[in-house]
Amino acid sequence: MLFSHLASIPRLHSVNLQTKNLTRSLPRVLARRNLHSESLEFSKVAMSTVNKTAHAFDKTRLDALLNRRFFYAPAFEIYGGVAGLYDYGPPGSALQANILAEWRRHFIVEEGMLEVDTTIMTPAPVFETSGHVARFADWMVKDTLNGEVLRADHLVKNVLEARLEGDKEARGVVAAPAAAAPADKKKKKQVKSTAMKLDDAVVAEYESILAQLDNYSGPELGGLMRAHAITNPSSGNPVGEPQQFNLMFASSIGPTGQHPGFLRPETAQGHFLNFSRLLEFNNGRVPFASAQVGRAFRNEISPRAGLLRVREFTMAEIEHFVDPLDKNHTRFAEVADIELVLLDKYVQAAGQSTTKRMTVGNAVKEGVIANETLGYFVARIYEFLLKIGIDKTRLRFRQHMANEMAHYAADCWDAEIQNSVGGWTECVGCADRAAYDLSVHAAKTKQPLVVRQALKEPVVEERAIAEFDKKALGKTFKGDAGVVTGAVEALDEAGLMRLKGELEQGPATIKSDGKEFTLQPGMLTIERKTFKTNVREFTPNVIEPSFGIGRILYCLLEHSFWSREQDVERGVLSLPAVVAPTKVLIVPLSSRAEFDPLVKEVSLRLRKAGVHARVDDSNTSIGKRYARNDELGTPFGVTLDFACASRPEPYDDPPVRLLVPPFAIVAHASKLTNGGAFRRERDTMDQRIGSIDDVIAAVTELVNGSIDWAEACQRLPAYDGVQAID
Amino acid sequence: MLFSHLASIPRLHSVNLQTKNLTRSLPRVLARRNLHSESLEFSKVAMSTVNKTAHAFDKTRLDALLNRRFFYAPAFEIYGGVAGLYDYGPPGSALQANILAEWRRHFIVEEGMLEVDTTIMTPAPVFETSGHVARFADWMVKDTLNGEVLRADHLVKNVLEARLEGDKEARGVVAAPAAAAPADKKKKKQVKSTAMKLDDAVVAEYESILAQLDNYSGPELGGLMRAHAITNPSSGNPVGEPQQFNLMFASSIGPTGQHPGFLRPETAQGHFLNFSRLLEFNNGRVPFASAQVGRAFRNEISPRAGLLRVREFTMAEIEHFVDPLDKNHTRFAEVADIELVLLDKYVQAAGQSTTKRMTVGNAVKEGVIANETLGYFVARIYEFLLKIGIDKTRLRFRQHMANEMAHYAADCWDAEIQNSVGGWTECVGCADRAAYDLSVHAAKTKQPLVVRQALKEPVVEERAIAEFDKKALGKTFKGDAGVVTGAVEALDEAGLMRLKGELEQGPATIKSDGKEFTLQPGMLTIERKTFKTNVREFTPNVIEPSFGIGRILYCLLEHSFWSREQDVERGVLSLPAVVAPTKVLIVPLSSRAEFDPLVKEVSLRLRKAGVHARVDDSNTSIGKRYARNDELGTPFGVTLDFACASRPEPYDDPPVRLLVPPFAIVAHASKLTNGGAFRRERDTMDQRIGSIDDVIAAVTELVNGSIDWAEACQRLPAYDGVQAID
Repeated sequence: MLFSHLASIPRLHSVNLQTKNLTRSLPRVLARRNLHSESLEFSKVAMSTVNKTAHAFDKTRLDALLNRRFFYAPAFEIYGGVAGLYDYGPPGSALQANILAEWRRHFIVEEGMLEVDTTIMTPAPVFETSGHVARFADWMVKDTLNGEVLRADHLVKNVLEARLEGDKEARGVVAAPAAAAPADKKKKKQVKSTAMKLDDAVVAEYESILAQLDNYSGPELGGLMRAHAITNPSSGNPVGEPQQFNLMFASSIGPTGQHPGFLRPETAQGHFLNFSRLLEFNNGRVPFASAQVGRAFRNEISPRAGLLRVREFTMAEIEHFVDPLDKNHTRFAEVADIELVLLDKYVQAAGQSTTKRMTVGNAVKEGVIANETLGYFVARIYEFLLKIGIDKTRLRFRQHMANEMAHYAADCWDAEIQNSVGGWTECVGCADRAAYDLSVHAAKTKQPLVVRQALKEPVVEERAIAEFDKKALGKTFKGDAGVVTGAVEALDEAGLMRLKGELEQGPATIKSDGKEFTLQPGMLTIERKTFKTNVREFTPNVIEPSFGIGRILYCLLEHSFWSREQDVERGVLSLPAVVAPTKVLIVPLSSRAEFDPLVKEVSLRLRKAGVHARVDDSNTSIGKRYARNDELGTPFGVTLDFACASRPEPYDDPPVRLLVPPFAIVAHASKLTNGGAFRRERDTMDQRIGSIDDVIAAVTELVNGSIDWAEACQRLPAYDGVQAID
Repeated sequence: MLFSHLASIPRLHSVNLQTKNLTRSLPRVLARRNLHSESLEFSKVAMSTVNKTAHAFDKTRLDALLNRRFFYAPAFEIYGGVAGLYDYGPPGSALQANILAEWRRHFIVEEGMLEVDTTIMTPAPVFETSGHVARFADWMVKDTLNGEVLRADHLVKNVLEARLEGDKEARGVVAAPAAAAPADKKKKKQVKSTAMKLDDAVVAEYESILAQLDNYSGPELGGLMRAHAITNPSSGNPVGEPQQFNLMFASSIGPTGQHPGFLRPETAQGHFLNFSRLLEFNNGRVPFASAQVGRAFRNEISPRAGLLRVREFTMAEIEHFVDPLDKNHTRFAEVADIELVLLDKYVQAAGQSTTKRMTVGNAVKEGVIANETLGYFVARIYEFLLKIGIDKTRLRFRQHMANEMAHYAADCWDAEIQNSVGGWTECVGCADRAAYDLSVHAAKTKQPLVVRQALKEPVVEERAIAEFDKKALGKTFKGDAGVVTGAVEALDEAGLMRLKGELEQGPATIKSDGKEFTLQPGMLTIERKTFKTNVREFTPNVIEPSFGIGRILYCLLEHSFWSREQDVERGVLSLPAVVAPTKVLIVPLSSRAEFDPLVKEVSLRLRKAGVHARVDDSNTSIGKRYARNDELGTPFGVTLDFACASRPEPYDDPPVRLLVPPFAIVAHASKLTNGGAFRRERDTMDQRIGSIDDVIAAVTELVNGSIDWAEACQRLPAYDGVQAID
């Protein structure tokens, strides 16, 4: 379950803490929705400060780079654009594809998961069962004069907070940093405070309302707006009654208009509905996992957080089906020693955000993480995020608090990645969802979504059972005979034994469907009998790691971005080779035609080795060409040089098939390190020299990750800067 | 533009031929729609006959296999299913993913295309411009009593054809096979004929109506229904007036309900709207191509052809942007010798379906294919389809006939793949769409979607230009001054020179917006001046290869399916290794725990080599396990055997890390050949033996395609069948 929570800086936590009673008895859809929107404005301010001082991160420069090099851009831009819809250009698409390819290797291939690809268009009954039709909604109000739409809870919150701030100003109290956060001037919807003193009782009332904001229903929010004269701050106009706005995109399937459908807001239901087929594919055995990468849609009311809050997005979800009585994991030992940064529910419940470092093994042993399977996936998520280049100092796992989770869930951890837009942003959710999903669909469809397991020892039990004289029943009750037998069969052990006792005394009555029926002793007999069962039948539990690919991708871009000291204008994206859109830049030193066969040869051989290379044979200087590809995050460059006659040794390839003999090839690495350290150090810009064969072999292995740069350096001598003659 | 045409057996062609005048002046959306639906029933019968005799193909067995092994299944099955929506299970997903991976390698990587990933949800104005809102529609009628929905043209056609057939029966004429085709008894909608003689004049009228069926508008179809007393055949009830049913799924973006949106019915618009960004990414130069893989949606009225006609599907589309004055292709020579089976428009126009074999080079030289770029892509499509396993004897390229194409298109070829459901089915379209798409979006948005090319020689031209005395104009015309200047500037060379002459005589008048304005001589001067242009500006043309992945996947499954003689019940899918869902089956000879480390070792090493393997350690016989994986199309098997002490030679791996020393590994290939031949011959079921290292190396190279089985046999000695002892 993704996107249940966006930020968790201290102030927000204290809010969360006090406002979550409502979610207790609701399914995932509400639990997910109630927190995620209000947090952006707080975290934005707090985090951009952190970044500027700690990382000298310049969001404006990054945005300019991403836009200029078409990583992504607002969709339908030439038509004026649509909020919350983005198109990925070539580098963004390739980056996304590489992240997904690594996701498939890391999870599906490595764990032997069963991949599925289910439809986006979904008939309404499915989401009625799952709870989305009723509850995947936000409350909104309309400005009664200009029609502007506002989220009801945000409106109350923003207006009351502004009034409290105005009160503080009037009292001459300096606002604490956390309380001052809402005053972010860039935020269009932000309500400006005016210095005006409030009665102490009013202040207390406002504070109480704010503390339990998520507890109010739509009508209650409407009542608050009337009671406290809350109007649309941007127009001063009154607003109407709160109405529920379902966040699923609705459509209609087929030509009659009688079959409503929705675009899925998550891929999960497609796994659950195919459970029986998947179980059979896995020879009837659990545990197993299904996995799916695909689009999902959420019709956000007013999305304004770039890739962090969009209306159409790519998700990658895993549903790991497991025996509820055995949540150990066979490969847990492989990850037990991984140390994570954890923010557990007890710390948060105490209003704090102090994280602790802990191995996964200890976290499970001490009960911090509920079970081995959940711990295993938390650790695997951590490994995956690090592998693709997320800075581990800006990654933590936050546990959902008791009231934050759906009532059926056993435990839930979010991988939160720090960024300048959303602060600590949930990018992966990892929940133990117990048996909820399969149970509701099974109940609705009457299909048994269960595992049947042969028992080594049969289970023997004695229980009461009723046997009916169907003829007698039919004669007496006619069409109601079925209702009567149903009513008897619905009785539990004690009820049956009571009825047996009554019937031994004479006629007995039983109620069903509001009617009362009189049973005669001869109509049925009730006896305790012995039953032997060889099969155990159970609904498996679901552990669900759920990845928001766009969010991860955006955070990765932030973590990878820096500028060289001597050229602040040009940014560098230090993306790891495994996800970099282009792996190798091929740069011929001159655009003269003699280079063409050599360029072709190197391109072809890299392509055959499965390495995605790109030629830059433009007329600009070699430095500019390197810089341009730094922006694209290209980790390696191969320069095609005129040979230096004084160093014949490495060039023992037969030069006959090349038009520029003798030749030289220079490899340079613009990105070597990974993780948190690279922002402080400059890239090495190391250059190495070798024959075509040697350089291609080294580059291929560098890209595949089978050698690192140090090993490459041992194979190829350093290039000493003696340039070839043109 | 995909899915414009589904089948082209002779009878259908003659129908097509006569009924396509309507499409001349309409954009792609109508040209595509008007043919594709009526062909299924004909081709189904004709082709299943062909298959049964020529290939002993059993569709029922294939369907059972695909369902049992969960290649794909109706979506929402436990909720009763929805027509035209399918979910892919693990083998289907993997097969699709592998086809797409090869597509990316073959097209995007090999050609250096720019991949994009654009949104599915699209605001209405985009499809208003493209023509989809107005014309991406079918005419339907409703049964006035029971509400059943029927496609209007199908209804007229089915009823009149049934009457003609009844007439023939009454006249004692034996129906020709083609004419008998509609009597497919399985087809629910098929209208049964009743022997009843018609007047000769009525027969002639019906035949004339049927011949031009695609020419009728909705109201005309309604007129025909009234004139000929056509009712709903399944109920006998009258039907209402034909109404247009747009095939796009509609929704609404944002909370106000004021922004209608559609789910894209193709991915193409996303390429066109991003053209300027892509051009810039490519340093302003054409030719270049963008490519995209993604979902598209069409709300078909009543889809009933399995994966060939669905409401949600995966497409892969390329838009190759090219200079309209130079459609040569630099790599054309590489494909010129490829021989294709072509069905050109002249043959079809003559009512025939005789194909001819021709090299792409000759086809372009002789003007059969319009230009090199189009020919290049046709050839590359051919190579791709063969590479993934399409039988080349069941693949042809059919040219669109003059009337079948949109008026702006230059040429269009469909890759048609023969199968038992749709006959010759369009699976890939390859069209030269000229400048249509970019032009309409540029006109609508006022964004210049053009290429600017520096000219080597500047172009010098002399032309008349008007210069205005703006003050004088403003004084006289006030707010209309802009209208007046606009009217003058809209004049062509001759008009300007005429106005110049008039003004030399005195005041002149000019009309605009229904008003007349009197221009005084002092208000403007008109002079011929010399202009020098250094830049050529043009709208590039688009060559569009467009792939329906689900259709290709289904045809591939048909072409790969066969049964061994000795076990007809169990099918085999001879999928090439490049697309096979699982590459290697690992079969330990016993499920005893001693095998576990060996199984783990082999699995791990194959995984590290990037080879997707699957372990089958169930308790069934080894033959059953092989058979089970034949059904999944697994091309290679590695059997983990107890070693045979009498053959120590190949086993020189240090056995220390294995728990079952000495050991043997047997490789067997269940699929070696490709293309059309395999159905006639049994798989070799060859077995080879070697050390772990040697077998893994050989299997890896077999899967990568760098060696074939013959080469593998040279490396590994044959296994002589001496089984190890358990």
